[in-house]
Amino acid sequence: MPRSTRPPSSKPGPVTLAMVARRAGVSPQTVSNALNAPGLLRPETLERVRATVDAMGYRPHRAAQTLRTRSSKLIGYGIRPTAPGATAPVMDRFLHALSQAADEAGYRILLFASPPGSPGLDGHEELLDLHSVDGFVLSGTDRGDPRQAWLAGRGVPFVGFGRMWSGRQIGDWADVDGASGTDAAVDHLVAQGHRKIGFLGWPRGSGVGDDRAEGWRRAMRRNRLPVRGRRAQSLDDLAAARAASGPLLDTGVTAVVAASDMLALGCYQALRDRDAVPGRDVAVIGFDDSPAAALLSPGLSTVAQPLEAVGHECVRLLLARMAAPDAPPERVLLEPSLVIRDSTPPPGG
Amino acid sequence: MPRSTRPPSSKPGPVTLAMVARRAGVSPQTVSNALNAPGLLRPETLERVRATVDAMGYRPHRAAQTLRTRSSKLIGYGIRPTAPGATAPVMDRFLHALSQAADEAGYRILLFASPPGSPGLDGHEELLDLHSVDGFVLSGTDRGDPRQAWLAGRGVPFVGFGRMWSGRQIGDWADVDGASGTDAAVDHLVAQGHRKIGFLGWPRGSGVGDDRAEGWRRAMRRNRLPVRGRRAQSLDDLAAARAASGPLLDTGVTAVVAASDMLALGCYQALRDRDAVPGRDVAVIGFDDSPAAALLSPGLSTVAQPLEAVGHECVRLLLARMAAPDAPPERVLLEPSLVIRDSTPPPGG
Repeated sequence: MPRSTRPPSSKPGPVTLAMVARRAGVSPQTVSNALNAPGLLRPETLERVRATVDAMGYRPHRAAQTLRTRSSKLIGYGIRPTAPGATAPVMDRFLHALSQAADEAGYRILLFASPPGSPGLDGHEELLDLHSVDGFVLSGTDRGDPRQAWLAGRGVPFVGFGRMWSGRQIGDWADVDGASGTDAAVDHLVAQGHRKIGFLGWPRGSGVGDDRAEGWRRAMRRNRLPVRGRRAQSLDDLAAARAASGPLLDTGVTAVVAASDMLALGCYQALRDRDAVPGRDVAVIGFDDSPAAALLSPGLSTVAQPLEAVGHECVRLLLARMAAPDAPPERVLLEPSLVIRDSTPPPGG
Repeated sequence: MPRSTRPPSSKPGPVTLAMVARRAGVSPQTVSNALNAPGLLRPETLERVRATVDAMGYRPHRAAQTLRTRSSKLIGYGIRPTAPGATAPVMDRFLHALSQAADEAGYRILLFASPPGSPGLDGHEELLDLHSVDGFVLSGTDRGDPRQAWLAGRGVPFVGFGRMWSGRQIGDWADVDGASGTDAAVDHLVAQGHRKIGFLGWPRGSGVGDDRAEGWRRAMRRNRLPVRGRRAQSLDDLAAARAASGPLLDTGVTAVVAASDMLALGCYQALRDRDAVPGRDVAVIGFDDSPAAALLSPGLSTVAQPLEAVGHECVRLLLARMAAPDAPPERVLLEPSLVIRDSTPPPGG
């Protein structure tokens, strides 16, 4: 090949505009304005930025400056590693949809690996510094998520796939109304003639899981039915789901609303453990419409998230935020839809 | 948010180095050399590039030039959209592994949506022009794939996850030895006591599918067993797999090697259609260790691809190619591994 050697790991250059911005506690755009359009800044901000530029010895290269202040057309997205053999089909389908929606808008998704448990702030910082991403899409948002405040504090546009589940809401987000999904699942089962409808959930404390539990609870109350549930001891572990299903089935339910398809599958197994037939003896409905749902016997009725629409909304909200940084936040809650297969016939079905 | 407005769709700038390279029919590095190290080029190439630079009015901006010839630390990857509800768990797991391996090497994956059926050359071009990616990882390689020749012709480093399946081999690749996987599946079934082992495959003509069929065939011959197979009429469609399984089961096989887990699942359904029990009445082994394999009843024995290793190899090969463009091509064939669950007991289960 004719291309000649490049050092594969050349260091990033000297002091960058992003480093000045961080030190001065302002956005990169503000530093750029200080250099190119100082009249836009308040005098005290201009002075602070200029002092930082001097102190750090930042040399604004005219061409680099032009390149940097122009949109990079890149959107950063942290992808979580999955354990070998495991998958995260919802997040993977979302990434496909997001990538497609970004392409259609003339943007590209820049991935960085965001290890589980780590908020990934280092990754965000590097994408800002080295690649000048225009903004971020956050997924897997949960209680105490530090990313939104970190990005907002730096004036970096972002949008969450998922709400802030506690504290002050920060920034724009698009999310799926999980409570509405489990609520609709209960109504479907009630219409089929079920009255004893149990809930198989996740351990308390996850925003998504508690939301799905709440939808079941409110629908049961609205239908004047007894509220009894059982939470599995861990998230999306088949053995835990199977173990948690036993005591729930012991209560004599004729139908189970599960907070995930994996939990529903654990319930299938618990039913077979007692020589009962899923669907026929106890109706089961899952959540997420994962690939396995259509493949199971009986086919699992489930609640599907509109992931293509979420991907499009995320890109739309992010671009709107880039265009109008000071506009009021916009939050979009999308309706999931029921996918009825063979696992939710009438009682004794 | 303090960040001020940016035009969300500012046009790319004037004539770029990549545009000159394309017009002159040389690599971007060659254009760079013409400007910065003309002594490296043959005189006729130098003259052609200089004439193109003049004709197009290209102005090599010193800083932009520095930025452009320095590594962008970006690797381009085309992601195929999946139909709503569908998933591609193998490719998704590979992308996770690739993203992780790239991060560890100080690189990032830049995604572009590559529609099915399109070779996605426009996407490659745009990533080169607008984002100066250092190279590409290609997946879903198949017969007649135009991408390798296109990239090689432009001197752009790339590595394939997957072989060229026909014609001249171009460039570096890492792949999984599918034939070795189905071969090992046959040996496992033979060791269990099976002799009538059928193959349930894809329609002829896909490189991956034919490779998996070949491994079954050679293992059957080596074991001096009769070679009888049946190919489904479409790729990864459950109804087609179920339909193709019937005639194969009619031949009296006691075990089936399927070219994918989806095909194996179609075989499960065909067995149940005739009131037979998968595993107990006919052993079934799949390919890919998809998430559903572990969830089925009985758990599906299958062949697992070492996707984490493939991701690491792809990054390693690509970085080596960037460092030594003229080194001979390197090709890595990785061994898959058997995952034995409950679907492959001895005959009569």
